[in-house]
Amino acid sequence: MRYSKLFGKTVKEAPSEAALESHKLLYRAGFIRESTAGRYFFLPLGERVQQKIMKIIKEEMDRIGGQEMLAPVLHPLFLWQETNRDKAVGFELMKVRDRRDFEFALGGTAEEMFVDVVRKFQISYKDLPFNVYQFSTKFRDELRARGGLLRVREFIMKDAYSFHTGKEDFKKEYHRMWDTYTLIFERMGLKTIPVEADNGYIGGEYSHEFVVESKIGESRFLITKGSEVGMHEDVARFKKEEKNLDEKEQPLKEVEAVRGASMEDGVEFHNLPLWQQIKDVVYVDDSGRFILAVIRGDYEVNEVKLKNLLSLNLFRFATDEEIREKLRSEPGFISPAGIKDNLTKGVELIVVGDDSLRTVKNAYGGANKKNKDLLNVNIDRDYQLDKEGDIAMAQPGFTSLDGEMLFEKRGIEVGNIFQLGEYYSKRMKNATFIDKDGKLKPFYMGCYGIGLGRTMATIAEIHRDEKGLVWPDSVAPFLVHLIGLKGAEEKANEVYKKLNEEGIEVLFDDREDVSAGVKFADADLIGIPVRLVVSLKTGDKIEWKKRNQEKSELLVFEELVDRLKTAVFP
Amino acid sequence: MRYSKLFGKTVKEAPSEAALESHKLLYRAGFIRESTAGRYFFLPLGERVQQKIMKIIKEEMDRIGGQEMLAPVLHPLFLWQETNRDKAVGFELMKVRDRRDFEFALGGTAEEMFVDVVRKFQISYKDLPFNVYQFSTKFRDELRARGGLLRVREFIMKDAYSFHTGKEDFKKEYHRMWDTYTLIFERMGLKTIPVEADNGYIGGEYSHEFVVESKIGESRFLITKGSEVGMHEDVARFKKEEKNLDEKEQPLKEVEAVRGASMEDGVEFHNLPLWQQIKDVVYVDDSGRFILAVIRGDYEVNEVKLKNLLSLNLFRFATDEEIREKLRSEPGFISPAGIKDNLTKGVELIVVGDDSLRTVKNAYGGANKKNKDLLNVNIDRDYQLDKEGDIAMAQPGFTSLDGEMLFEKRGIEVGNIFQLGEYYSKRMKNATFIDKDGKLKPFYMGCYGIGLGRTMATIAEIHRDEKGLVWPDSVAPFLVHLIGLKGAEEKANEVYKKLNEEGIEVLFDDREDVSAGVKFADADLIGIPVRLVVSLKTGDKIEWKKRNQEKSELLVFEELVDRLKTAVFP
Repeated sequence: MRYSKLFGKTVKEAPSEAALESHKLLYRAGFIRESTAGRYFFLPLGERVQQKIMKIIKEEMDRIGGQEMLAPVLHPLFLWQETNRDKAVGFELMKVRDRRDFEFALGGTAEEMFVDVVRKFQISYKDLPFNVYQFSTKFRDELRARGGLLRVREFIMKDAYSFHTGKEDFKKEYHRMWDTYTLIFERMGLKTIPVEADNGYIGGEYSHEFVVESKIGESRFLITKGSEVGMHEDVARFKKEEKNLDEKEQPLKEVEAVRGASMEDGVEFHNLPLWQQIKDVVYVDDSGRFILAVIRGDYEVNEVKLKNLLSLNLFRFATDEEIREKLRSEPGFISPAGIKDNLTKGVELIVVGDDSLRTVKNAYGGANKKNKDLLNVNIDRDYQLDKEGDIAMAQPGFTSLDGEMLFEKRGIEVGNIFQLGEYYSKRMKNATFIDKDGKLKPFYMGCYGIGLGRTMATIAEIHRDEKGLVWPDSVAPFLVHLIGLKGAEEKANEVYKKLNEEGIEVLFDDREDVSAGVKFADADLIGIPVRLVVSLKTGDKIEWKKRNQEKSELLVFEELVDRLKTAVFP
Repeated sequence: MRYSKLFGKTVKEAPSEAALESHKLLYRAGFIRESTAGRYFFLPLGERVQQKIMKIIKEEMDRIGGQEMLAPVLHPLFLWQETNRDKAVGFELMKVRDRRDFEFALGGTAEEMFVDVVRKFQISYKDLPFNVYQFSTKFRDELRARGGLLRVREFIMKDAYSFHTGKEDFKKEYHRMWDTYTLIFERMGLKTIPVEADNGYIGGEYSHEFVVESKIGESRFLITKGSEVGMHEDVARFKKEEKNLDEKEQPLKEVEAVRGASMEDGVEFHNLPLWQQIKDVVYVDDSGRFILAVIRGDYEVNEVKLKNLLSLNLFRFATDEEIREKLRSEPGFISPAGIKDNLTKGVELIVVGDDSLRTVKNAYGGANKKNKDLLNVNIDRDYQLDKEGDIAMAQPGFTSLDGEMLFEKRGIEVGNIFQLGEYYSKRMKNATFIDKDGKLKPFYMGCYGIGLGRTMATIAEIHRDEKGLVWPDSVAPFLVHLIGLKGAEEKANEVYKKLNEEGIEVLFDDREDVSAGVKFADADLIGIPVRLVVSLKTGDKIEWKKRNQEKSELLVFEELVDRLKTAVFP
């Protein structure tokens, strides 16, 4: 490719809204342009990188037996209604009607579509397992787009869906995909950390994000020293150490407590440790039920864990008014003890407790009346839970179940793998296969995504220096950046022709009215792995310099081709 | 690929709504499935064909210097408003709003988007010409989807846009694209006929469709024997032979004519030839103006030619009531002679005439009054035209400008190339480049499309027999269909492994519970170019049969690989 005719040349300035270095560089070097917020053009250089990323993913997906196919981008909305996801996904889902008033979702993820096409066939256990995938445009109506390609509203995603006879077979695929993802990102120069995460609106029981550590990442997670797997705070389990379990249970006592409504006010008033206090948070679910979440005073409630424990979709905090009028309690003085005795008629209340409540004895807290507290509150004896489990937010500094300290890291999520189990096959009709015994059984499923644009931005963020981008060989838009200097135009042209004949991808800066300095600066900015310079000074030889090294060498053409074909790009 | 694990196996029956053979076969052989009307899943076999088509297009586009890039699928509606195309395209354009109430068009074609990204750069004449293209999902809200992949509502299109300093440079590109399209389709086994067509809502002055002749095609065109280029009736010019020009002009005469309102009634009443009668058709344009189109009695008005001559967008016929009340004329008795003398106040009327009116003298027709006709009507003397040109519909049997007879043919339009000229760059702000003289000038443009799914369906329609599909080597989903028969499982497995090692694409029918007959029938249905059979009977050799030939041969493995690598797939 001759740079003189390339559409999308370098520019000096990035737009002021570009905050991240990778965004600025991808803009300045001519890889991307914004159409409207969060929707990008991939210019010829950018599209070349995107396609190399695509090729690596395809190779590795095919290697493990993946089958590429393609689903429509407009999904009939009735499919999303079949799984109730049209509501769960909420605002992020864009919808459109056609001229016959038929309603579609603009696909942001395609589980329903793939189940729908699979159930058009009579699948037998002999056909299973299979893993089908596609590269296609995805839409997410994000509230805020940011970071160039990092959080966008439209992007190409590789999404894969695997179908199995059951859990055991699925687990093998999950591990295979785990290894494949690690390898895919490695091939692109990205070291990833798998991070256990909540499945969110995708459904299913467990999932892992593949995260590239980076200060600018939006994905925060916890990890212990030496561990290779992280955990999101939404799923991270940790040790809740026993506090005063050797104490004897004391008699429950109601006391006058003229204090403020905060946890700290309680600590100060009673002069007792925070961990001994009971923390109470009241929510309302989408059907109007009240949920009282109770936890040890030094922990926070994690709402995702709470939702998952209760299998609920939507939440909001109860208002002070509701606490007084519906629960007949008092903000700042709520207690699980006795709260159910005094509810307004018709009000439903579920009391959910964190298992940390079993690590304390003789706890203290409110008495469901203003300025009254209870002392020596004990679980089971003084209050009962409707549901008990882990609803506590993990924090850096806490101890993992293995007894190691949890550290916080940040990173960019470039891919994820999900166990879906029977989440879709049980909600969608006829999503079944014929098993060995002749019976129809629901598929056991998984799904696996990689966002291409975000991966490209992450590579740019990780592989750059103060002069510009430094593409890994595997995803570089071209392998060679050839520069011809004044007086050596003819020879440069000849080298260009010969490199093309050798099948080597070359960007040839053949501009005649541009100084050597500008050409060198542009080459550094664009970041192609090998720079070759042909000038009057290089004689019969050609100057060879790798973008990620300082030294340059003079090579004859044959040597150079040899290197390009072997050492540089194995 | 092992057939046992392939998703999308053959089935016996096609759905009843599948009318075309290609549709039935693509369905039965497991290449496609419908999601909702006009929106298709490409199953793994189908997607492999689609990607081979894509690869051929990419290779040929790149060979002539095309630069692949990618634009968002959601186009900001304000861009379509900038060119007024949001109205011109009408119902086919789907629109969607995001959560911030920003309106988008679902791209059906991307001229505005590409002009928009290009104008983000300071383009100099030195950067020109360039031709940028993309493969991306396109949406057309068609009233009727039909023919499987032939007329759909969502599809992948290769759309290219070229930018030039002016007409001369553009013409070179138009010819290059012409040749490239011919070659692209040839490589896929399709012989195309370029057919001159109207540009429609794409804009610009001329265009050519690439049409594959087929009885099931929707594209009708006219062509002379031996010609390599056809013409759509909307643009086809033809010889309008002179009739009675040697006659002397006779005095205009109004006569009583108690007759019906049809042309035949006039012929019968006056006992004069149809060609001597004047045909009058009244339209109303989108601003409420009346348009009287006048033509020789034996020709029909072509509305596209009429629209183009007048540069108008929308049309409807005038009602009888309007003809009486606004034009103060009479349906069936309209005449260009004198019609403007008697219009209702405020009514605007444009009289447009076909140039065929100059081939007759002493014509006859209505007198703008019921049961009154005019005889000896002569152009210029008795009536004047506001606009004159070719608005006549060409018909099979007419004579081309070269003096040859026009025949009608039908075919499937698989691609098209458009001259756009300055259509977009004049309507969109700042769509300019800096010319040699330092002045800003509008780009001169062209655009070039190929629909991938329709191309695939066309190949399937052309290349098939009574047993199934017969893919050309270049686009076949696999090159080899390997069948292992009972007792030779181990050897078949070994051949499969060795072929894979040789880098040959193999579909291996490894099913153990399926008869030889079923396997052979499935192979014929799927239509992969080479069938290899390994059985106890073939001994050390392997049976080789091409799908498009009857004879089979026994070959040793090395021979077979040799053939696969050379003769079959050059």
